[in-house]
Amino acid sequence: MLALTILGNNSAIPAFGRNPTSQLLQTEDDSFLIDCGEGTQHQIAKYKLRRSKLSHIFISHLHGDHYFGLIGLLSSMSLLSRTQELHLYGPPPLLEILLLQLNAASVTLSYKLHFHPLGEEGLLTRTKKMEIHCFKVQHRIDCWGFLFRQIKNPRSIDPDRVKSYEIPAAFYEQLQKGQDYHTRKGTIIPNTELTIAATPAKSYAYCADTIFDPELAGKIYGVDLLYHETTYLKGLEEKAASRFHSTTVQAAAIANLAGVKRLIIGHFSSKYEILDDFLEEARSVFSCTDLAIEGTCFRI
Amino acid sequence: MLALTILGNNSAIPAFGRNPTSQLLQTEDDSFLIDCGEGTQHQIAKYKLRRSKLSHIFISHLHGDHYFGLIGLLSSMSLLSRTQELHLYGPPPLLEILLLQLNAASVTLSYKLHFHPLGEEGLLTRTKKMEIHCFKVQHRIDCWGFLFRQIKNPRSIDPDRVKSYEIPAAFYEQLQKGQDYHTRKGTIIPNTELTIAATPAKSYAYCADTIFDPELAGKIYGVDLLYHETTYLKGLEEKAASRFHSTTVQAAAIANLAGVKRLIIGHFSSKYEILDDFLEEARSVFSCTDLAIEGTCFRI
Repeated sequence: MLALTILGNNSAIPAFGRNPTSQLLQTEDDSFLIDCGEGTQHQIAKYKLRRSKLSHIFISHLHGDHYFGLIGLLSSMSLLSRTQELHLYGPPPLLEILLLQLNAASVTLSYKLHFHPLGEEGLLTRTKKMEIHCFKVQHRIDCWGFLFRQIKNPRSIDPDRVKSYEIPAAFYEQLQKGQDYHTRKGTIIPNTELTIAATPAKSYAYCADTIFDPELAGKIYGVDLLYHETTYLKGLEEKAASRFHSTTVQAAAIANLAGVKRLIIGHFSSKYEILDDFLEEARSVFSCTDLAIEGTCFRI
Repeated sequence: MLALTILGNNSAIPAFGRNPTSQLLQTEDDSFLIDCGEGTQHQIAKYKLRRSKLSHIFISHLHGDHYFGLIGLLSSMSLLSRTQELHLYGPPPLLEILLLQLNAASVTLSYKLHFHPLGEEGLLTRTKKMEIHCFKVQHRIDCWGFLFRQIKNPRSIDPDRVKSYEIPAAFYEQLQKGQDYHTRKGTIIPNTELTIAATPAKSYAYCADTIFDPELAGKIYGVDLLYHETTYLKGLEEKAASRFHSTTVQAAAIANLAGVKRLIIGHFSSKYEILDDFLEEARSVFSCTDLAIEGTCFRI
């Protein structure tokens, strides 16, 4: 299971009931919070998402609409006596910002917070079923995108078959690695008889705030789901570029270039109340596009 | 006109749709924001309150539920190209917290922000029609309360009378100061003939987060409206004291001791979903009590 819930989709300031950027990526084991604009903890409560599975938070950059809700969320989890460790990845200055606020309140968090400053592109961490990479995007200040990729054995145990052949559980790991099974009598049961091909490993790329940058396509090539910002509608390419943002058709062009399966767009400018044109324009270039509407859950 | 709108009334974490503390005190000329929990800018938009009149912000202390929304509000007003100067009063470490975040985002505010660190008790500032004092309250960390008092001439011009006596407008200021008018012919028109007694100057005291402290009563004596926190219901006095908070009956006792006209209570613990008991308990001690319910406007 890999599911992405949108918690906020607006740029710069909250407007028309739309909150600043935040997304929650859920697996069976862990939840990953991506950016955390003001009010994210309210949104997590509103959509009844469990905080207990939240194991990692990724902050793309230090524009307020992407992280002003973080200190509140971290504080609230402490007030609620969280004990699980939490990993936070963000731009280096984030740590001092957080510590200054915790110190001012004489607060010691109830849980261990591991801060990992973002720097070079590459693998950030690997959990039981996911690996997460970061890559740089072009924005007004240092900004990173994140690539989430499922880790899957190519084949998984067929529970009925291993039972009928009475394979000991101790051998399951080797079966998953592709080995055949040798019975005591010397019979070889081929691996394909005992395992089934796993569904392909899924992937999600979050491109944060970025100017139109075709080089980005190489970093996120072939992902199942791509989030690309669309602060403006087409025709405003010049304005978008001057602010290191993108338009609908630019986001869709990246989706095409990167050969992704599906695109979601967000980070809408507060000048737009109605979002229909965003969808129409992006779909005219990349048909499999959806709006990152708050509360929507995209199953990958 | 003096009117207080409640923007948030919950303690520690947002719960049951209740936001952390914030209040807006409005006069004809200015608005004063008192504390600014996360989501305050959302609340200001929700209740359609004008930001353009906001001239002063007062932050009582650096527990997050009283100021985590400040950086977002300040940033948004800049993104909306505010030009009016803004005065901010708060605990000294607040300035560094804000500057660190503005610097990390490479943001220069579009307006002049004057930061005034809180320290000694006394007069903070005087606007055209208000004077604002601060006083210390007893909490886990440094914490200040605020006293807002209208400035009023004891008498105001009677427009019909000054017209009928053909008093030149240039003399109005002296009339308000209590002088009689001498006509060219030497007749003395007594001041009471030309002016009417002004309505009494109104006052509002905000006691922030505080342990039960009878000495507080002397600092806010006789105000028209008092806000006193009631984190807990009665019976939890020991817990309240250990956390430097107050209960319903303690808040009401302060209202009695201070001889105030009206009491509002808030900062409800997240353990309470229903607030009826807060009102009942406080009213049993001080009958003229109301709950600080979000969106409610108290005219003073």
